Amino acid sequence: MVKLFKGNVINPVSPSELEVRENCTIAVRDGIIEAMFDEKDPIPENYQGLKAEDFGDSIIIPSFTDLHIHVSQYVQRGVGMDCLLFDWLNKYTFPQEANFRNLDYARAIYPQVIRDFLKNGTTQVAPFTTIHYDACDLFFRMLEESGMYSYMNKINMDMNSPEYYVEDTEQSVADTERFICEHSGSRWSGRVQPIIVPRFAPTCSDALLKGLGKLADRYDLGLHTHLVESRAEAAWSAELFPQYGSDGAIYERCGLLSGAGPKIFAHVIYPTNVEYEILNKYTAYSVHCPISTNNITAGIMPVSEFLKRDLRVALGTDVGGGHDMALYKVVGTAIQSSKLKAFYEEDYGRIDLTETFYMATAGGGAAFGRFGKLEPGYHFNALVLNGLQDDGFELPLIECLERFCYSGDDRNISHRFIDGNLIDPDEVFERIKGI
Amino acid sequence: MVKLFKGNVINPVSPSELEVRENCTIAVRDGIIEAMFDEKDPIPENYQGLKAEDFGDSIIIPSFTDLHIHVSQYVQRGVGMDCLLFDWLNKYTFPQEANFRNLDYARAIYPQVIRDFLKNGTTQVAPFTTIHYDACDLFFRMLEESGMYSYMNKINMDMNSPEYYVEDTEQSVADTERFICEHSGSRWSGRVQPIIVPRFAPTCSDALLKGLGKLADRYDLGLHTHLVESRAEAAWSAELFPQYGSDGAIYERCGLLSGAGPKIFAHVIYPTNVEYEILNKYTAYSVHCPISTNNITAGIMPVSEFLKRDLRVALGTDVGGGHDMALYKVVGTAIQSSKLKAFYEEDYGRIDLTETFYMATAGGGAAFGRFGKLEPGYHFNALVLNGLQDDGFELPLIECLERFCYSGDDRNISHRFIDGNLIDPDEVFERIKGI
Repeated sequence: MVKLFKGNVINPVSPSELEVRENCTIAVRDGIIEAMFDEKDPIPENYQGLKAEDFGDSIIIPSFTDLHIHVSQYVQRGVGMDCLLFDWLNKYTFPQEANFRNLDYARAIYPQVIRDFLKNGTTQVAPFTTIHYDACDLFFRMLEESGMYSYMNKINMDMNSPEYYVEDTEQSVADTERFICEHSGSRWSGRVQPIIVPRFAPTCSDALLKGLGKLADRYDLGLHTHLVESRAEAAWSAELFPQYGSDGAIYERCGLLSGAGPKIFAHVIYPTNVEYEILNKYTAYSVHCPISTNNITAGIMPVSEFLKRDLRVALGTDVGGGHDMALYKVVGTAIQSSKLKAFYEEDYGRIDLTETFYMATAGGGAAFGRFGKLEPGYHFNALVLNGLQDDGFELPLIECLERFCYSGDDRNISHRFIDGNLIDPDEVFERIKGI
Repeated sequence: MVKLFKGNVINPVSPSELEVRENCTIAVRDGIIEAMFDEKDPIPENYQGLKAEDFGDSIIIPSFTDLHIHVSQYVQRGVGMDCLLFDWLNKYTFPQEANFRNLDYARAIYPQVIRDFLKNGTTQVAPFTTIHYDACDLFFRMLEESGMYSYMNKINMDMNSPEYYVEDTEQSVADTERFICEHSGSRWSGRVQPIIVPRFAPTCSDALLKGLGKLADRYDLGLHTHLVESRAEAAWSAELFPQYGSDGAIYERCGLLSGAGPKIFAHVIYPTNVEYEILNKYTAYSVHCPISTNNITAGIMPVSEFLKRDLRVALGTDVGGGHDMALYKVVGTAIQSSKLKAFYEEDYGRIDLTETFYMATAGGGAAFGRFGKLEPGYHFNALVLNGLQDDGFELPLIECLERFCYSGDDRNISHRFIDGNLIDPDEVFERIKGI
């Protein structure tokens, strides 16, 4: 089935090129962009007679990929921010996450999370959940029903965790394998796929990491975890795992990078050459979450260095360390943070809207396949933006996008598409809350 | 006339105390809070028989004071942020501000600004406008009609400015005096009062500053300007005015601190002991605008040092350097910025929600009199907050306020009061756009 959509398209071609095509028509066949043509072009023969859905002066952009968020911390966003990190974890985060052992709690919270993703135009997501199999299974089924794309699993933690929120090593591996087996294959759409999600090295024993490494190898799965998030964390990892020499080497040597799926590392603020080499070798995604790392005072990721090394960078909200579900706000904050880093550390350059919007769309989208661009061959996962002009002063289209990333909110998103289908966040919410 | 309002009151008692009074009734006589009593208290005799407007589970807080914003840069918010400061001024700001020579342009833009203030709960404001008398007169009359409180004047700049946006020195002083005379006295409500607003020392000649100093003295007015905003600006001021020795001394020695009105200095990021002494001597307000100073990479104001010295600190959005009209967002960003400063500069401490919310309300409100607290004797300029709870997990009231400051938006403000009167931003907009 073919659908035509028309509007002012802004497409992140590359980290250095943001293309604007005014009054461009996008032809979508079975959810995938098949062709794009401008007003001056003749209408291709196979689309003649079809009526485009015309968005007029609105802007069409690819939807967002949030490549690092703790969906189980949703209710904590914007709360407890005066705490230092370990107080925040022990007073707020661990007790709250432990609530997900109760399936009714998960059933109350998770539909709100998915609604908020969709309201804010995020259609691909790599979430951290909790250790609880049943709550993770529920979240999987809600994601599946929502139409969103995701890589997920239960998370793993068998040490250095509170006694009310910790796992037995073998059970943790067994539950993870069960999750993989129960959520793969032709029963499901394939949009939501398993990955391996150890919380981070300091909360995982060597035996657990190696057990998970075997699963990554056996089922050819990717990895999602935290990497050199803070100086304290990097030092703690090194102390706990002296045999591996560095935070990144732990995951590699335990076999967690052996599968074909995407390798997703959150934060990566203090990479050594070992980490840079591993990121390059495995074409890994480093996820910049500046709202969160500002809140938890971890430091600022050296993004300009990653770009210089041609490494993949995506963005994450990292709620609840981050306080905003809107990935476009992360775009603005990433630019601000790079300015502050450049102000304080002369070796770092600023990053700009073109680079940062690319990370939020095509950068993270690539982890899922052809997502995050508006070009033939890509999924039509897209947003229509409105209400970014003031009366009496007209902004160019690129500046409307810039304003959206700094000052916008979900009211500026009038339409959301996944695979060419219009998505209504409230309707999805009503549908999934009964699962 | 007496009105009673009931709800969960959060009151910024001091920079170190945020008081919560659940189910508290506030008695307001002719716009001023006369008494407050809790459910356990007997209803005072003179309020018996009156029915309170009951806001139930909602939160009542004082409304906000934005003590530094360029209302003439409203249409630039969230735009041009990839520029360095001088490019931003020359490419975006000066050409756009120059548009206000056309009164129709001012008539199109300014009602949107006032609507946005009110939507976001700002009821007291110290704006920068432009050099144009007529547009400033119009903005004054719109503010007057809106019910808001303000200190304002035309701004002054007679050098180091583009040739299309610069004043003759004598004309600048004459227009400023005319503005004072035409906008004082019993014809007006007294809510909007004149002040002196030189842009900043580098765009003002010594003769202009001294001429304005005479007006401050003659009419007993305060001052609103920028002070040691960046290293470059402080150095430039020192170079242009070697006879005064420091940025702060320029304003003092030119007589601009001689009136009784409030002295409002934006940014104050690089104060020397001379500036600290002047701020103390004149009980001046230093306005922290972290969203803006992050965007323009000016550095981070050493707020904890100001608090240690017991100096007055207020908050400002500084739109268009800042990209958000919401002063509550400045609260969250101020906390984040203090964490980053403490991360990079070991001499500085973090500031917390209690301190920062105080700055946004009572801190800046004091420039107008008894504003920014919910206590007897204070104006009932207040907001009712809602929608800050998620389903399934209840936050304490203070954490609802915290969430509002990080993740909230104008939809969380269900009611806005000025002097006890309910204000509808859209109704005000319709009323003032015809002025």
